[in-house]
Parts: sequence; C-alpha cells; structure tokens
Amino acid sequence: MFARQNVPRYNVRMRASHLEDFYSFLRFPSISTDDNYSERVSECAHWLVGKLTGIGLKAELVPTPGHPVVWARNQHRGGRRTVLIYGHYDVQPPDPLELWDSPPFDPVLKDGYVFARGATDNKGQILSHILGIQETIEEDGELPINLHLVIEGEEEIGSANLGKFLIQNRDSLKSDVAVVSDTGMITRGVPTLSYGLRGVTALEIKVTGPKMDLHSGVFGGAVANPITALAQLLGTLHDREGRVAIAGFYDRVKSLEDWEREAWRKLPIDGDREVLKETGAPELFGEAGYNSFERLWGRPTAEINGIGGGYQGKGTKTVIASHAMAKLTFRLVPNQEGDEILKLARAHLRKNLPKGVTLDITDGHSGPWYLTDPHSPGGEAAQRALRKAFNADVALIREGGSIPIVSQFRGILGIETLLMGLALADCRAHSPNENFPLENLEGGIRLNKAVLRELAG
Amino acid sequence: MFARQNVPRYNVRMRASHLEDFYSFLRFPSISTDDNYSERVSECAHWLVGKLTGIGLKAELVPTPGHPVVWARNQHRGGRRTVLIYGHYDVQPPDPLELWDSPPFDPVLKDGYVFARGATDNKGQILSHILGIQETIEEDGELPINLHLVIEGEEEIGSANLGKFLIQNRDSLKSDVAVVSDTGMITRGVPTLSYGLRGVTALEIKVTGPKMDLHSGVFGGAVANPITALAQLLGTLHDREGRVAIAGFYDRVKSLEDWEREAWRKLPIDGDREVLKETGAPELFGEAGYNSFERLWGRPTAEINGIGGGYQGKGTKTVIASHAMAKLTFRLVPNQEGDEILKLARAHLRKNLPKGVTLDITDGHSGPWYLTDPHSPGGEAAQRALRKAFNADVALIREGGSIPIVSQFRGILGIETLLMGLALADCRAHSPNENFPLENLEGGIRLNKAVLRELAG
Repeated sequence: MFARQNVPRYNVRMRASHLEDFYSFLRFPSISTDDNYSERVSECAHWLVGKLTGIGLKAELVPTPGHPVVWARNQHRGGRRTVLIYGHYDVQPPDPLELWDSPPFDPVLKDGYVFARGATDNKGQILSHILGIQETIEEDGELPINLHLVIEGEEEIGSANLGKFLIQNRDSLKSDVAVVSDTGMITRGVPTLSYGLRGVTALEIKVTGPKMDLHSGVFGGAVANPITALAQLLGTLHDREGRVAIAGFYDRVKSLEDWEREAWRKLPIDGDREVLKETGAPELFGEAGYNSFERLWGRPTAEINGIGGGYQGKGTKTVIASHAMAKLTFRLVPNQEGDEILKLARAHLRKNLPKGVTLDITDGHSGPWYLTDPHSPGGEAAQRALRKAFNADVALIREGGSIPIVSQFRGILGIETLLMGLALADCRAHSPNENFPLENLEGGIRLNKAVLRELAG
Repeated sequence: MFARQNVPRYNVRMRASHLEDFYSFLRFPSISTDDNYSERVSECAHWLVGKLTGIGLKAELVPTPGHPVVWARNQHRGGRRTVLIYGHYDVQPPDPLELWDSPPFDPVLKDGYVFARGATDNKGQILSHILGIQETIEEDGELPINLHLVIEGEEEIGSANLGKFLIQNRDSLKSDVAVVSDTGMITRGVPTLSYGLRGVTALEIKVTGPKMDLHSGVFGGAVANPITALAQLLGTLHDREGRVAIAGFYDRVKSLEDWEREAWRKLPIDGDREVLKETGAPELFGEAGYNSFERLWGRPTAEINGIGGGYQGKGTKTVIASHAMAKLTFRLVPNQEGDEILKLARAHLRKNLPKGVTLDITDGHSGPWYLTDPHSPGGEAAQRALRKAFNADVALIREGGSIPIVSQFRGILGIETLLMGLALADCRAHSPNENFPLENLEGGIRLNKAVLRELAG
C-alpha cells in the first residue's frame, strides 16, 4: 500500500498489445458521477465487451437504471470451482485539472509508470486480470475454473445498481469465492492480502440565511452569516484531539484485536513515517491513542470533502452569502451501521445548528465495512498465489478505503472475497497524476494465472 | 435606507437624454477588482470625461498605479465657497450571475426602477449630481460655488490610490466641504443625512495540510483535514450570542450615545422589522443587547465573505483537500483602528489554529470609520437642501457600510463630508438585480441644485 522505494528499476517485458489495451481502456473519460459523461461511460463498457469477446469469453452488457454492468463468462463445466472476479470501469472526476502534469485521459508512460485517471483505480488492476485470463486461455486452451467476470460502472458513486444485478442473477452467478483487486500493496514488491475494509456513508448539508447575497456593510451584524454558521456547525464534528464528537458515534465500534495491532507493528514499513512521506502533511494528526495504521484501517472518521459559499474569486467582495454548503463522508468500521451513523450525524447537526439560519441535509451513498478471515481455505489459496506471483512473504492487512460491493457478495451471493490489491500509495488514486506501475500490471497478470490455478484446487 | 413601500407610483418626468446618459454609464462593466476588466474600467472613465466636458466643465483623467481618477472643475472665482463632490464609477463583480433576472450590464427599466450592476452603487447617485450641475449651468449660466468633482475608479477595492491623488493635489483641491451620495435613505421619500459610517478591514486565510488532494478512505484519520481545521478555526471567531470572540476586539469601541439610540428608535421605520423584510433571513441574529439599527450602525462585526475547499461539484468525491481558504472582513466603529484589529485577528487565528495544518494570512484593504456633527453649519445647510429637494423631514442616522475616502477628506484636505445618500435598502447594492428608482435620480438632481445653492450661503 505504501511508497515507491528506491530500488533498481524493474525490467518489465510487457507485450505491446497489452500496453495498447491499457491505453485504450484509459482513454475513456468514464466519470460515473457526472451526467455529462454518460455516453463516454457507455463507450468504455462497449470497449470492454469487445475485448472480452476477443479473448474467447461470452460477454454481455447488462443495462441498469444507471451505467451498465459488463458480465463475461467462459464455458462452465460441472465439477469445477466457480470464481467471480470483480472490478469497475468507472473513474473519479479528474479535478483539479490544473494540477495534472499531463491530460488525465491521455495516458503517458514515464519511468515505468503509466499516468492517467483510473490507471490504478481500477482500470490497471482489472485489466491485469483480463490479460491473465487471456494468457491462460492462449497457453492452456481454457481456464481451470468456471469464471464470472463482473465489471461495473458505478463503483465511484456507490454501486447503487449492482446489488439489483446480483439479486436478479443470483442463481446464474452462484460462485465459490470472489476475487477483487481494488486495494493496495503495503509497499512495492510485497504481496498483500487485505482482510478488512472500512465502510462509508455520505451526506451533504446546506445552511441558508438571507434570501439573497447581502452587502456585508449594510446588513452585517443584524443577520446570521451562513458561512459563519456552517463553520461553527462543522467545528462541532470533532474534538481538538481528533475524535469524532457525534454522540453515539463510537458506541458500536469493535476494538482492534491484540494480534492485529501486533501484526501491523511488524509490517516491513512504518505507518507513521509512510503517511508523513506520502501525504506531505506537516505532521501526523488523528485519534489519540492509535498509530497511523490503526487510525487508517481500524478506526472510523468524519471527513469534510468539500465546502463552498460566498465569493471565492480574486480580490474582495463584501457580501454575506445567502447560503453555504459542505459535503461530508464518514468511514465506518465493524460494527458501525451506515444508516445509524447518518441518523446520529443528522441529529448532531440539527442540535448544534447555530441561530439565525436553516439547515438542509441530503443523504448520499453508503457502503458497509468488511471483515473476513485470512486463514480460510480461500484465504490460504490467495496467500499461496500471492507468494508465487511476487516471490515474497505476504502481508496481511486491512484497508482504509471502502468497496461496498464486497459486503453484497457476502450478503447476496453468500461468498467471501479475496482482496489482492495492486495499488501503491503513491499511485495517487482519486488525486491528480494518478499512475500505475507496469511491473504491477505484469505482476497482476501472473497473480491472476496463479490464483485461478490455486483456487481450482 | 430601508424598504420600498406600497405607495402610489411616482410620476417621474425624466428628460430622455438623462436616461440615455444613465444607460450609457451603466453599460460599462467597470469591475475594479478583476484585472480582466481593466480596459472596460478605463473606457468608463473616458466616457465620464466626455460627459463632463460636454456640460461645460474642465475635465481630465488623472492616472494612478491602478484605475484613473476623473477630476472636473468649473471656472473658480474668488469669494465663493468651494465644494468637492465625490463619487465612484467602479462597481462590484456581478456574481452570482445566474441570480440576475436580466444581464447586469444591460440596463432594464421596470416599474420605474433601472436594473443593472452599479445602478445604485454608485453610478445612479453620482450621475444625479452631474445632471444637477448640468441643469444649473443650463438655467443660470454658471454654478453658485467653485466645484471640484472627483470620481474615482477604485472605491470597491479600497480606494488605494485616491489618498495619493488628494495629497499630490492638496492645494488645488482646497475646499470648504465635501458632498457624497453613496449612502442610503432611511426609507423611500425620507431625506436622510448620515453622520457616521463603519470602517472596514480585510484579510484572507489559507489553511494547508497534505501536499495534494488525498483519497479520504486511504488516508482519512491519519492526517488533519484542512477544511475541518478551517471550520474549527472560523468557528472560534464568534461566541454563540453573536459577539466577536477575538481578544481585545471591543476594547476601543465607543458606546452609543443615549441621544442617538433614542433618535434611532423614533425613526419612521422599525429596524428589526425592516431587516427581516429586506433580507428574508429566518430570524434576526446579532450581538446581544442591541437592536438592529444599533447593530448595523454602531457595533463592529467579523464577517466571512467567502469560503472554499475540496470538491464543490455535483455528486460525491471522497477527497481530503490539500487546502481550504476563507475571505474575512471586519466592520469597524469609533474608536477601533484597522491595523490593530488586523493584528488582534492574526494573533487570534494563529493561537486557535488546530493541529496538523499550516496557516497563511494575507491582509486586504482597509478603511477607517467616520463620525461627524450633523448640526455643524454645513450639516444644517445639507438638512435644508434635503428638506427642500424631498419636501419632508430629514432623518439623522449612521450607516453600516464604509466609505474610507471620507476619512481621507478629513485627514488630508481638512474638510468634513456631508453624506446625503439616495440608495434604498432594496436597491440591492452588491447583490444580484441591483436597481435604482428613477424618482431618486430625479430627486438627486433637485438635491444637487439645492445643496449647491445652500452651501453658497
């Protein structure tokens, strides 16, 4: 998960057609959250169907009320294990555009890294599975397992329609285990099995005062300023030691196990040092009593993802804004429940609303946390495949991000998920200059081939 | 200053050429704060010189490091009083554009009101003086006083270069009194002399955490969120009862006199009711212990005029922003000093900065408060002119806004200023759909003619 190290350049021998596929995939601005890009999202899905059909799978586009699901299968045969590989072809918006060194949808290869929005999250990772399947079919004529490949277009906006897809096709999709590469490697070259994920739930708030922007000289002092009120309100979300101050927020939080705190302390990298290095933050800051890995993987958060109100242009404008808004997300850990956290948050916000303004709250998307046993038979098979693909000891970790679908695989299909991520911390998922090392694309191809063989038993 | 009443429509008999002049003046987007509009500001100044020359004044454009000053004079003669009339031709930015019912620089006449940015602040008001001078010259062949007409292009950005203009031309500009119409009438039809103004001082703050935007799942909880830190910081500026919580902020504040609190209570309108009506705010809110007029005219404020950080677009983006910013202004009353307030504010912000982030503070423009005696000989002449022009009793008030130049007239030229404003509260200065009633343009013309005669003695 963390840090590009100063190790000798990896000697990647990538097949030219694989690189071409990667570039073609990255060129689609498949931004799921922005309606203006709906057609480009759809074009990306069509490209995938073409690619999967081309390597010998039966692939189709399954429409949803939002963006379509790409679903591909090989010829299933009795007596074989069935494996569901999941990924997503949609990406985050590229803003702020001016911080990119090259256009986000015009991939550039530099020092072995490919730079583009979606390079890591998730196009590079899901493509490595596709290319692994391609090579296995080329080498062996067929796959050693029955395959379901499910690639959705709404992961970045909460996978709102994938659950319905799973429910509607529950019988067809019956599988033994799911494989997902949408998480990170603890550091370059260290194969990593993630056995836990944080959940997420979101809301947006709007604080309104006067019916229009006012002259702050003429009216300042006699009416509440919505920006001031919003700041005061948001200032109540945390105490000054980094704890979330919403009543009941920690009530269901399961304490970290001693064995995992111990295991994380023994990982080949130091979390505190890596967080400082990767983020460039002036200092560490988080919930008192926990180190960085524990804060990131085992503790919940309340984050403000965006705020806006009044005049943000050049110079001065002496206004009292009519309204101001903020976007919030909460990261959840076992055994918090998204709906309950939203309820507590809404109650907190209403209770702490300053005088003189009104408050509108809009709930956003949600996804639950995930926790599984890395020592199950599937987990052990994954560890063997990881060791084989990367020729190194496997790190067992949790992750700070959220993959809501993993809980749906458990809830709807009744299967556990093996999270074998290929992202490095400085791959800049969700940030400008997102990138993916070709050595991880190549490693991902080897991993796919190994894990299908290991899971075949 | 307050409120369009439900009175019968005023029957305006406006000369067509006056209306044409008003429209021409309003069509210039003379936005002084935005460098992209520098040429349009200059075009507006050139138009004024042409107009003033056309009515028989000697007019010139005085360059400054910023926008030029328009300076016009009649033929001065010994033994006459000298009057300096001041106004400004620059305007506020029109944002948010989408809230305008008609384009801000394409004036529209509707029910006797002209809608355009600058209609009230200050083009309509200064033009009424120009047209009054024009009519007096047309009727009498000359003015009864020696005139200096000074119209600057930087009032909305703090009049940074007008002081130097006054200093450099101190001898030439020697006058007995200044006349300014850049304030308000207490209500429609009630002539108003403003004997006090609040000052203003500004600063901008930027809170920075990580060196780039981060994935709030991957990194959330281990580094400080700059938006959260900014909200917490801004939340310390006030207590929950509306008092500014900066140490020392009120130390130099002069208490309101009993006589003015009494006079304001007897005004023909109720401040609390008018503030609610004009702003549409859900309730009154301000410093405990004061009514709305007292809060607006006699008490200082700390206002956040703008805030921004992170993702403000449609949908959700799970980021921790690298930085967040806010724009602040403080309204000042006697005997606060802008530099001292900035110093106290900077100290407060640095002292209350949450952990894990850094703070940059940039000082903005400043202007002092003003207080004069409405019963001086000049003040009495102004009251007579106001009574004559509007045929009604004169209201004596203070104002919440700031006209920094008024203190410069006193400090540099040694003269007092008569503030005889023509703005109504719902003229929406600084807001979308700014407008000016033609009856006030006409009243302003009568007022100019009357006040020059009264001041001539």
